[in-house]
Amino acid sequence: MHSPPLSPQLLNCLTPEENTGCQHGLYFQDGERRVDYILTYHIKKPSSSRSNRQSSRFTDNAFTRSIRRGTARLGRAPTPQPRGDPEVASQDHSMDYHVDDKRLHREEFEGNLRDMGMELEKDEDTKTPGVGFVKIHAPWHVLCREAEFMKLKMPTKKVYEMKQSTGVGAKINTLVNKATEPLYPNVEDNRTHNVKHLSYMFSREKQHLFDLSDRDSFFDSKTRASIVSVICGPCNACYVLTFCCSVFQLLYEEWASYSVFYKYQPIGLVRKYFGEKIGLYFAWLGLYTQMLIPASLVGVIVFLYGCATVDDNIPSMEICHPKNNITMCPLCDRACSYWKLKEACGTARASHLFDNPATVFFSIFMALWAAMFMEHWKRRQMRLNYEWDLTGFEEEEVSDHPRAEYELRVMQKSLKKEHKTQKVLIGYSGFTEKEKLTCKDRLPAYMTNVVMMLLMIGVTFAIVFGVILYRISTKTALHMSNNPTTRSNVRLTVKTTAAIINLVVILILDEVYGAVARWLTVLEVPKTDKSFEERLIFKTFILKFVNAFTPIIYIAFFRGRLVGRPGSYLYVFESYRMEECAHGGCLMELCIQLSITMLGKQLIQNNLFEIGIPKLKKLIRYIKSKRRSFQEEEREKKLQRYETDHFLEPFAGLTPEYMEMIIQFGFVTLFVASFPLAPLFALLNNIIEIRLDAKKFVAELRRPVAARAKDIGIWYNLLRAVAKVAVIINAFVISFTSDFIPRLVYQYMYSPDGSMHGFVNHTLSYFNVSNFQDGKEPMDPQHQVEMCRYKDYREPPWSNTPYVISKEFWAVLAARLAFVIVFQNVVMLMSDIVDWLIPDIPKDISLQIHKEKILMVELFMKEEQGKIQFIDSMMPCGGKEKRNNHAPIARSRSIPHTHSHTHANNF
Amino acid sequence: MHSPPLSPQLLNCLTPEENTGCQHGLYFQDGERRVDYILTYHIKKPSSSRSNRQSSRFTDNAFTRSIRRGTARLGRAPTPQPRGDPEVASQDHSMDYHVDDKRLHREEFEGNLRDMGMELEKDEDTKTPGVGFVKIHAPWHVLCREAEFMKLKMPTKKVYEMKQSTGVGAKINTLVNKATEPLYPNVEDNRTHNVKHLSYMFSREKQHLFDLSDRDSFFDSKTRASIVSVICGPCNACYVLTFCCSVFQLLYEEWASYSVFYKYQPIGLVRKYFGEKIGLYFAWLGLYTQMLIPASLVGVIVFLYGCATVDDNIPSMEICHPKNNITMCPLCDRACSYWKLKEACGTARASHLFDNPATVFFSIFMALWAAMFMEHWKRRQMRLNYEWDLTGFEEEEVSDHPRAEYELRVMQKSLKKEHKTQKVLIGYSGFTEKEKLTCKDRLPAYMTNVVMMLLMIGVTFAIVFGVILYRISTKTALHMSNNPTTRSNVRLTVKTTAAIINLVVILILDEVYGAVARWLTVLEVPKTDKSFEERLIFKTFILKFVNAFTPIIYIAFFRGRLVGRPGSYLYVFESYRMEECAHGGCLMELCIQLSITMLGKQLIQNNLFEIGIPKLKKLIRYIKSKRRSFQEEEREKKLQRYETDHFLEPFAGLTPEYMEMIIQFGFVTLFVASFPLAPLFALLNNIIEIRLDAKKFVAELRRPVAARAKDIGIWYNLLRAVAKVAVIINAFVISFTSDFIPRLVYQYMYSPDGSMHGFVNHTLSYFNVSNFQDGKEPMDPQHQVEMCRYKDYREPPWSNTPYVISKEFWAVLAARLAFVIVFQNVVMLMSDIVDWLIPDIPKDISLQIHKEKILMVELFMKEEQGKIQFIDSMMPCGGKEKRNNHAPIARSRSIPHTHSHTHANNF
Repeated sequence: MHSPPLSPQLLNCLTPEENTGCQHGLYFQDGERRVDYILTYHIKKPSSSRSNRQSSRFTDNAFTRSIRRGTARLGRAPTPQPRGDPEVASQDHSMDYHVDDKRLHREEFEGNLRDMGMELEKDEDTKTPGVGFVKIHAPWHVLCREAEFMKLKMPTKKVYEMKQSTGVGAKINTLVNKATEPLYPNVEDNRTHNVKHLSYMFSREKQHLFDLSDRDSFFDSKTRASIVSVICGPCNACYVLTFCCSVFQLLYEEWASYSVFYKYQPIGLVRKYFGEKIGLYFAWLGLYTQMLIPASLVGVIVFLYGCATVDDNIPSMEICHPKNNITMCPLCDRACSYWKLKEACGTARASHLFDNPATVFFSIFMALWAAMFMEHWKRRQMRLNYEWDLTGFEEEEVSDHPRAEYELRVMQKSLKKEHKTQKVLIGYSGFTEKEKLTCKDRLPAYMTNVVMMLLMIGVTFAIVFGVILYRISTKTALHMSNNPTTRSNVRLTVKTTAAIINLVVILILDEVYGAVARWLTVLEVPKTDKSFEERLIFKTFILKFVNAFTPIIYIAFFRGRLVGRPGSYLYVFESYRMEECAHGGCLMELCIQLSITMLGKQLIQNNLFEIGIPKLKKLIRYIKSKRRSFQEEEREKKLQRYETDHFLEPFAGLTPEYMEMIIQFGFVTLFVASFPLAPLFALLNNIIEIRLDAKKFVAELRRPVAARAKDIGIWYNLLRAVAKVAVIINAFVISFTSDFIPRLVYQYMYSPDGSMHGFVNHTLSYFNVSNFQDGKEPMDPQHQVEMCRYKDYREPPWSNTPYVISKEFWAVLAARLAFVIVFQNVVMLMSDIVDWLIPDIPKDISLQIHKEKILMVELFMKEEQGKIQFIDSMMPCGGKEKRNNHAPIARSRSIPHTHSHTHANNF
Repeated sequence: MHSPPLSPQLLNCLTPEENTGCQHGLYFQDGERRVDYILTYHIKKPSSSRSNRQSSRFTDNAFTRSIRRGTARLGRAPTPQPRGDPEVASQDHSMDYHVDDKRLHREEFEGNLRDMGMELEKDEDTKTPGVGFVKIHAPWHVLCREAEFMKLKMPTKKVYEMKQSTGVGAKINTLVNKATEPLYPNVEDNRTHNVKHLSYMFSREKQHLFDLSDRDSFFDSKTRASIVSVICGPCNACYVLTFCCSVFQLLYEEWASYSVFYKYQPIGLVRKYFGEKIGLYFAWLGLYTQMLIPASLVGVIVFLYGCATVDDNIPSMEICHPKNNITMCPLCDRACSYWKLKEACGTARASHLFDNPATVFFSIFMALWAAMFMEHWKRRQMRLNYEWDLTGFEEEEVSDHPRAEYELRVMQKSLKKEHKTQKVLIGYSGFTEKEKLTCKDRLPAYMTNVVMMLLMIGVTFAIVFGVILYRISTKTALHMSNNPTTRSNVRLTVKTTAAIINLVVILILDEVYGAVARWLTVLEVPKTDKSFEERLIFKTFILKFVNAFTPIIYIAFFRGRLVGRPGSYLYVFESYRMEECAHGGCLMELCIQLSITMLGKQLIQNNLFEIGIPKLKKLIRYIKSKRRSFQEEEREKKLQRYETDHFLEPFAGLTPEYMEMIIQFGFVTLFVASFPLAPLFALLNNIIEIRLDAKKFVAELRRPVAARAKDIGIWYNLLRAVAKVAVIINAFVISFTSDFIPRLVYQYMYSPDGSMHGFVNHTLSYFNVSNFQDGKEPMDPQHQVEMCRYKDYREPPWSNTPYVISKEFWAVLAARLAFVIVFQNVVMLMSDIVDWLIPDIPKDISLQIHKEKILMVELFMKEEQGKIQFIDSMMPCGGKEKRNNHAPIARSRSIPHTHSHTHANNF
């Protein structure tokens, strides 16, 4: 609702083949002034009319005001939050405007821009019908002025050499660099790090410090565009003019290509082209992927360890032993019959792959890995901040710009108030200052939020429950049947269909929840864009997380817990027995569910959706435009660069990208105890993901306005939260889902010889067949048994209190709980120690920053020597000598006795 | 080892009575130039000679270098770290210097200072024999220059009114302010908050922005002194000249006085006088004390609840019931005899005071309280940062100045290397850059550190164990005796003496550990002062914490755990039985131990030591000086202000003050489940502590150089760590030390009617007297019993496995462990939510900061209008109008349609 009458849009290089024609449309008609920004508007009168006049007038006010506000918003580039297609938005906006009225506004806006010093050039006679373009050029003095207000750090003339360590360390460094040479992208920028330009906040007073010999390239295209966008105010869909020919080509070849998947990303270039915010995302994704390499290595080793030791595992050996002749109780009343423990041999062996002591080690490892990842990211971020000259830049605490929706609501509220107090049209001025949306105003929205969130979570639960019922009922049907082939077929069918249903439900709900979260956030009317984004992310995160992990949590912690015992099984709805895990424990099933969900989600959501749908959209758009006019085909080839951009997708923010990765991070850390291969799958996915995203950003999206950012914001907190929860969940998985603790307890408390022999027997309780109530005994009469066994810790039939939970049960439970406490606290302590041991700022960076500060002072001192001599007239020349202590002559006086050791080296 | 040849020292107002003579000695002889700093030196040749020439020459180099380095240390006031009395230090330093040599150095140093623009005045003819004074005055241009380099924020001419909220909120505010009026100190500064000067980094180029009409008071005495101290470089004992008369008087009356104990502290004044670092300490202490008020209120209520319900407590009623006739087993072999449960009536009733459901609530409350405290402190800190104009100030990441000890070690190392490589006296230059102390060099020190730390912790354990043995042995002696009066006397004696021994040991070890930690840190040779301080604090914290809490942890978690059962009690050293808790549980004893330790520590350490010892020292010094020369008595009255300061204690840093409070915070949070009155005691102590510290800082210590600081540094992390540990410890205290969980388990699992009736019986196991092994049955033949009872969950004699741990034991254990998990995670989650709900930066402050930024821009725009008009020659006057959008005329053009709503109000 808040779009300007001119929807701004910018140029983009489409493909590298077009680079030769790159200059076309990049300059004003005079061929000298560069186009920094482009605004588009509709020429035809739109027909739709959906809103009242008051609100649109208001919107317009908000817009014109935003221009002036832009000038007051120092040091903060707007975070572009496009809300839909700009064409649609400007249609929305124009409402019931008369064409003249609209033109008036546009002209006023253009006048304002000219007042600010911008230079405009109109181009209404384009080949794209219905769209007019206003090209904007920011002249040098405007750029300087705004750069000063935005406190941009720019490189000064002063160059210094980065300290190169000498000796053994340096040699090793050189060797390592040589060895990793092929891993670096072929980008010069990346390798010549020995020399750095000192940066300083740009100031017109200190212009002499900066190298202004080439005014055209002093501010690069990204900076120019972000400066213009600050002046123009926030806009719905802003695009940056690409000064692209070389940078774009490099990015296309050395970054957005699958053939360089094994290389580091040219993050410097990415930042140069897209700005810091997007640069940080790719740096983060890169580090995450890099960190996944050791994790997946260890995961594979753990898995292989499981494979290698599967034949030495005493419990599964005992189960599979041919002499084993234990008769198990029927798994359901009446329909099921007795079975032999040997039948569980396969699952018992398979379980061992994921349920062995190595997984305990692995989940500790992964918790520490997560802590290391966090720390490494903090360091990497700091390093990037330094390299990108963001060290001094403070992000504004309050995003001062209220969203148009918020202002609209505030105005409506105060209008209502005025109507009540009969002071219509008098107290118009100043109400936005006094009025604001209080909790009371927002209460309905908050209530809706809470209710809807609960409802959505309830829906997730209901669906999971539905899938459970599906499994139970088909299983019952299976047990009814006597045909063994049907049985095995049905079992397979049930498992597969249930998993697929789960996956499909997750995928569908993911989309639904994304929309619901956005709707709920719009309802809330947050005041600022930042607040809107954070609330949206928070809600989406919760919903998607619940959606992805509910079935998994059910299997890990609830399935097979409350099943009762033979003779008195527990039922849901009086007829469906609660599900039980296979004999090897639920860990195996958890593992299957995890891998299906994770792989399915990644394959379908990330790759199919992300590759397929944009391709499809492009195709549709192409077909549409073709249908519209066949002659245009000819013209299109001669289109100006900014016109071709009409067919690109608008940039929709980084939220979906981050969200996808966070959910994946959840899969990698939350249940890693049960699925050590998760990091490997994540790694494989991410290697593709990086290049996929790169391609998307380079070629398929309009180039967004560069946004400055020092960190990844709320995502870091979410990562931390996931890592924290992971510790607890892993503790519970190990102690409750796996058989690790019962085995330990048996070995140290009950085993006669300290070995695992007899463990299987120990976990099985006795049931006297004569204790079956009437109608519950198995109908199948083929077995003649007196005593059957079932997996539980209960008193035997011959005790005083038969079938009551036994002492062993409590002992094992206590051990399990104790393990949780120990595991959680030890791992948390270790994570804290990792956090504490690894400094947040890399040593060399902090030294470098310090060095730069000193160099800066030195530079100033040099520049101001004359001034100081004048001011210090009472002090005959001392100041100069003192300050120049990097010059040996000056030093020789102040340190007469020393062997001149090294003070100069400090600088 | 690193003291300058002139030990700097400054003036201080001694007592308010002397204020009338305050001007005496504050100015140079000309009566115009103010003395900003004073350096003292010894005139006589010292006799001691303890070091070799090389190291002292080195020390001197380090010193002269420090002068120049001082100029390079921008934006960071030195943290004063005096290492002992300056006189002693300068004796140490002078070593085997010839007097002339020393004078040469001094003169060179003075020359350097003059070169830097300082003005000096010597005063060797003082009444204090053997000490010469150099008074330093920093002239205006030097102050300006250094203020610019230090990036000091100074108030500009621009004044703006703080937004006053109107309406109901404001009225309530006024009411509250009126109600709390008497709580505010009578300091004007504190109340007139409506108007604020805009602050900006001082810059000579922008002098016109600042109100320089009164150059003498533009930089206050604190700022002047810290500027001079930056130029002089770090020194061993720096003191600031007081420009004190009004501020000092106010502080003395409205802060450092017990009569204003109920008032807020005048933190603004404290900061003005002592600088930000000390201001932050007192602000923190004030907030902590304030936060203790609700905590102690709730604590008292919880305690009163315990008192009120003591008669309704079914377990203690059952124990005390006259009909109760349970015979208990003897508590030791042979010597002890059977006893009646009724005897435990007293302790059981007393236990209830601290062991009731309210304590569970209270420990959750206190965990949240700790989280709230942290959050509030963050906010208060932010507010102070804003009020003190520190918002832009960045603390340097690397304290660049290596400590003299470190440089000495590095030089020794490289000298050794050179000796080895036969290149003596050649490669002198540049070695400090290449050489540094590697891990290998530090390994011996690290090893010593680890060993000594473990040894010290071992000593603590040994002493605790010794006290246990003392108690056990005397108790055994008690049981041997048959005389009941002896018994009760001995029991009392044992408890009292053991507690007193514990307390005395803690107090002595505290002092020892302080010294050991310092020694160990010196051994480590940390590179910078900051690193030295952090390492020292860390070590001291660990040692003192272990020292204070080991006996308490023993009682809470180990006492009475491994005692065996009647007939097979466990013994240490074959003869001493392990201690058992009284029947009411160990919680009572824990509570006693806690209160004795806490109260004793506070009374003796804080008050006796802190008040008594300085008084004593002063007395001794006074007597000494009297003995030295009786005639001086006369002179002393006419002493210059800075001469009288010789008799004041040097400032020893804030570490002891913080450490004391952190240990107290530990008492308040760690075991609060067992001692709800802890916050009350802490509160009472702190009310005194604030004024005590205030008195000390104002009247008994030399005024330290003001240090800038944005936060309380490592102490905040330690507080967080204590708060985290507190959650776990409280979980364990509730579940393992108290009877809360067994009672719950009984009520919900075993009680026949769901009440607590029968609980006592349930917790007592049976023992068949005939099962006593030979020689273990009680000698006392007065009772004829067949079956006795003891407190434990074990199988009865008639079971298949008599005296084996019973199922109830495991069930209770599982419940206890489950409670720990639930409690820990719920409380941690709640703390995180509190952390997340309370924004770190108060809303009004963030708005204010933003507003100031906008005002600043506006100010600049005004100032630069002419300039802009000139620069913007290509743009005829637009810029001016745009920028001036606070002026209605300009606005009327850009917003023709609006009812001029409120843009101006944004500014």
